[in-house]
Amino acid sequence: MAELEIDPARLESYKAAVKEEMETSVRVEPGVLAIYAVAEKHNPSKLRFFEMYADEAAYTAHIESAHFKKYVTTTQIMITSRRLIDTVPVQLSAKRK
Amino acid sequence: MAELEIDPARLESYKAAVKEEMETSVRVEPGVLAIYAVAEKHNPSKLRFFEMYADEAAYTAHIESAHFKKYVTTTQIMITSRRLIDTVPVQLSAKRK
Repeated sequence: MAELEIDPARLESYKAAVKEEMETSVRVEPGVLAIYAVAEKHNPSKLRFFEMYADEAAYTAHIESAHFKKYVTTTQIMITSRRLIDTVPVQLSAKRK
Repeated sequence: MAELEIDPARLESYKAAVKEEMETSVRVEPGVLAIYAVAEKHNPSKLRFFEMYADEAAYTAHIESAHFKKYVTTTQIMITSRRLIDTVPVQLSAKRK
C-alpha cells in the first residue's frame, strides 16, 4: 500500500499520469494483478493505493519497468509526500467476475 | 478503507472472526464486491482493509447485516483502535480473471 499527497494545483496532471501508468502495468506485466487508487473523500489530494503482485519478483520487475520509471520522473514534482506500507495478506475476498 | 489495531494477545481470534465475516459478506451480499485485509509486515497487529461496494446503499446494507453485527459484538474487545477512511475511486485497474 502507499499513501501519497499531491500538490493540489497539479492533481489533475498527476491523476492522468498515474492512470496511464496503472493501466499499462496491469496490461503488460504478468505479475501485476491489481492496482487500486482512491482519494480521501474529504481531502481529494490525499491518495491511497492498494496494490497486488503475484510475488516479490513481480514487484521488483514493476519498479524496474520503463513505464514505472517514466511515471516517477514525470510525477516527482507533483508529489508532496509519499509513504509506502509493506503488507502481507490476511484474507482477500472478492466476487468472482 | 479502515485501519485497525488489534490486541496482540487476541490477534488470532480476531483474524478467525474477520475472515468468516468477510467470506460471508462477499458470498451473500450482492453489493459487497471485495474486501481485502492485509497486515503491516513489520507490525502484524496493525491491519488495513480495502473494501469495494457497488454503491452507498450496499455499504449501508452491509453494516446493518446480521453477520456484520455479530462480528462487531464478537470482536469489539479485541480491537484497540479503529479508523475509517471514506474514499472515492480514482482508478481501479485489475487483471481479468
